[in-house]
Amino acid sequence: MHLLIVGGSDAGISAGLRARELAPDTQVTLVIADAFANYSICGLPFFLSGEVPDWRSLAHRSLAELESAGLRLLFNTTAERIEPARRLLHVRDQSGARELAYDRLILGTGAAPICPPIPGINLPGVFPLHTMQDSFALDEHVKTKQCSTALVVGGGYIGLEMADALRTRGLDVTLVELAPTVLQTVDASLGELVRAELERHCVRVLTGAKVERFRATDGHIVATGTPNLEVCADVVVVALGVAPANSLARDAGLELGARGGIKVSRRMETTAADIYAAGDCVETWHRVLRAPAYIPLGTTAHKQGRIAGENAVGGAREFAGTLGTQVVKVFDRVSARTGLRHDEAVAAGFTPFTSEFTCWDHKVYYPKAHEMRVRVTGDRETGLLLGAQMLGHVHSEVGKRIDVFASALFHGSRVEELEQLDLSYTPPFSSPWDPVQMSAQSWVAAAKF
Amino acid sequence: MHLLIVGGSDAGISAGLRARELAPDTQVTLVIADAFANYSICGLPFFLSGEVPDWRSLAHRSLAELESAGLRLLFNTTAERIEPARRLLHVRDQSGARELAYDRLILGTGAAPICPPIPGINLPGVFPLHTMQDSFALDEHVKTKQCSTALVVGGGYIGLEMADALRTRGLDVTLVELAPTVLQTVDASLGELVRAELERHCVRVLTGAKVERFRATDGHIVATGTPNLEVCADVVVVALGVAPANSLARDAGLELGARGGIKVSRRMETTAADIYAAGDCVETWHRVLRAPAYIPLGTTAHKQGRIAGENAVGGAREFAGTLGTQVVKVFDRVSARTGLRHDEAVAAGFTPFTSEFTCWDHKVYYPKAHEMRVRVTGDRETGLLLGAQMLGHVHSEVGKRIDVFASALFHGSRVEELEQLDLSYTPPFSSPWDPVQMSAQSWVAAAKF
Repeated sequence: MHLLIVGGSDAGISAGLRARELAPDTQVTLVIADAFANYSICGLPFFLSGEVPDWRSLAHRSLAELESAGLRLLFNTTAERIEPARRLLHVRDQSGARELAYDRLILGTGAAPICPPIPGINLPGVFPLHTMQDSFALDEHVKTKQCSTALVVGGGYIGLEMADALRTRGLDVTLVELAPTVLQTVDASLGELVRAELERHCVRVLTGAKVERFRATDGHIVATGTPNLEVCADVVVVALGVAPANSLARDAGLELGARGGIKVSRRMETTAADIYAAGDCVETWHRVLRAPAYIPLGTTAHKQGRIAGENAVGGAREFAGTLGTQVVKVFDRVSARTGLRHDEAVAAGFTPFTSEFTCWDHKVYYPKAHEMRVRVTGDRETGLLLGAQMLGHVHSEVGKRIDVFASALFHGSRVEELEQLDLSYTPPFSSPWDPVQMSAQSWVAAAKF
Repeated sequence: MHLLIVGGSDAGISAGLRARELAPDTQVTLVIADAFANYSICGLPFFLSGEVPDWRSLAHRSLAELESAGLRLLFNTTAERIEPARRLLHVRDQSGARELAYDRLILGTGAAPICPPIPGINLPGVFPLHTMQDSFALDEHVKTKQCSTALVVGGGYIGLEMADALRTRGLDVTLVELAPTVLQTVDASLGELVRAELERHCVRVLTGAKVERFRATDGHIVATGTPNLEVCADVVVVALGVAPANSLARDAGLELGARGGIKVSRRMETTAADIYAAGDCVETWHRVLRAPAYIPLGTTAHKQGRIAGENAVGGAREFAGTLGTQVVKVFDRVSARTGLRHDEAVAAGFTPFTSEFTCWDHKVYYPKAHEMRVRVTGDRETGLLLGAQMLGHVHSEVGKRIDVFASALFHGSRVEELEQLDLSYTPPFSSPWDPVQMSAQSWVAAAKF
């Protein structure tokens, strides 16, 4: 059995390892576009900030580990075309084009940065941030040009991490975002707290602003746009989100689904026989929406890759679904969410009610208590939990608190049930009612449910 | 309707507040043995360490808040006898004995420290630690006698917190524990890591040792016992656990249950009409054991008090059950648990398998990663999660990670399902598979389930 995998990032590697674990006789080959397999892409901002001095440490596993697990890695090899009928993948490397036969194929082609056709977006000094090479190029540019000013275009989580990274590295940073506030993945009241944190760290934040042109002037980049936008910087990072890298699948006739993600079943089967797909290139089953969505996340890529690998060697496992759980650190604050925001719940046909709650992360008498903000969204008719958002200090255990919500949401819990969870308490870390529970009680009281 | 409550700590106050919230016409009177209502008893070690300079800040709520919520507080009033048939409570205060009539009575009498009849245990300089007065007396003793050495008898979580507190305050501390290691509420391998943390902070730990006598010598206390135990200290704290304060209930003919806790239904009804009980004085429904147990915890007292208060004014809410979830900070380490340990699971008739897993609390390339230890107990036959234990650094979000297990356990999850939870990830705080999930995967692989 020859299992061929396109992509050497989270989904592809997880698939290959799982296939070999369950069926050690499987021959597994990975076609990898660049020279880097199994790197933590999520770690790139921390390499660029200087907090991770050596990019090599970003590897989830060493090459030796991958090879000893039985994965054959073809680096610098581009997958050009699939012929599903003949079970062939056409690839190209330094020595030219060739065909690889497969019994099963797994696509883990990932996502690519959205690069709108802004004039000047390809100028030297303007960088997307997605691959290892992008990061090296940016790092090199900042070093050799001795950059002291940076512009980050886009206030999503990668934009925020890059603003943090470049500021931590000592640059003066301006962040431009089209929307009225940053971090559109959480509600505006939390986004405003993130903006305040950026400003507290001297990042200049321009919201409701649109970059319409880049031009090079005296070794700088000048970005202009509306309303009256003009920012001059030594380096520009464009972080406007990603879109599924779906061309290989599309050209082979595979159906596409939500927002261009490759259409897959919950067993990660594409619409073509013997071809699976997983990770940032696919649409993803949403556990609350009970429908596919496009939510590219590393956690999901690992899960889906593992399932695709298992099923490609004869398994029948189903992906339980995403909740879109995510967390981002911005300087000393952390923002996290799981499930649906209020407007997403409305759009999905629920009758949501959302409450916002402020409390201390632990008993205030114990030193270093910080205030945190929790937003709970539940359905007014059924009382079911639909989602939660949270903002707090880096030591407020925000990520794992959103995970308590995520765990309850996974099990279809009612908001009211959260107060009955038996959660841990000691004064340095919580209260007898955890913030998760106090915010749920507050929701119940306000919703008169 | 007159609701009478005995006890002004977590259960009693929670009951009174909830009753007034739901039925504002209810007359609520609390009979409180001392002068302190609604204090965070769990915070006392942090007052004694000096981290909380003013004990007044330990109040969960101010007196004014309690009174404006409509609670009538009778301080320094001892409940002496219940006459269930006449719905009377006999009390005594400075002005003498009197009777209080009630329509409903809630007992929140709490627990009292276990004081074995060790000769000398009542000497000046030997302290239990349970009430506010105990703490003031200990604090005063340490100050006025300018204590420089301390002995803590008992290595449970209060003993550990006291060893930490007194060491933090600058004393030389010796801790004596009868069992082979400290913190018997977790398995020995984790207990040994707690011991190492104590020793790293220069606490002398003597396990397998039993104090058989205290005597006073030259203003010091000398504790002697087996094997060849002899410790001289300026101050001694005895922390050998607690037992339910059940005499008021017992003398009134109320049935007692697990380990002497007042027998209650899941609606917090005692065996006597119109008398409820909640908190450290009652036996507690265990959600995994499906049976009553005695596990006194502040979190449970708050929940049960709230339910007793609701049901006393006409509600019909049921306590969902405890999992025994708890967490303790010892210097820079945190130990937590939820559900059953291996031996408890065996005793309860399960067929448990327990695995131990070591991993980093977040991606190791990001600064300040710490190793953490996770023990997962599941049932070999059903695959159900039975419990988890964890030890890590104070910034490893141990408490909230055990809460993810607790949340899964609450919902009757199988160990295998944990890997499908959609948990949050960013490199400074976790990995694409959270330690909760990696340890569950490791359990599944080892149990061959």
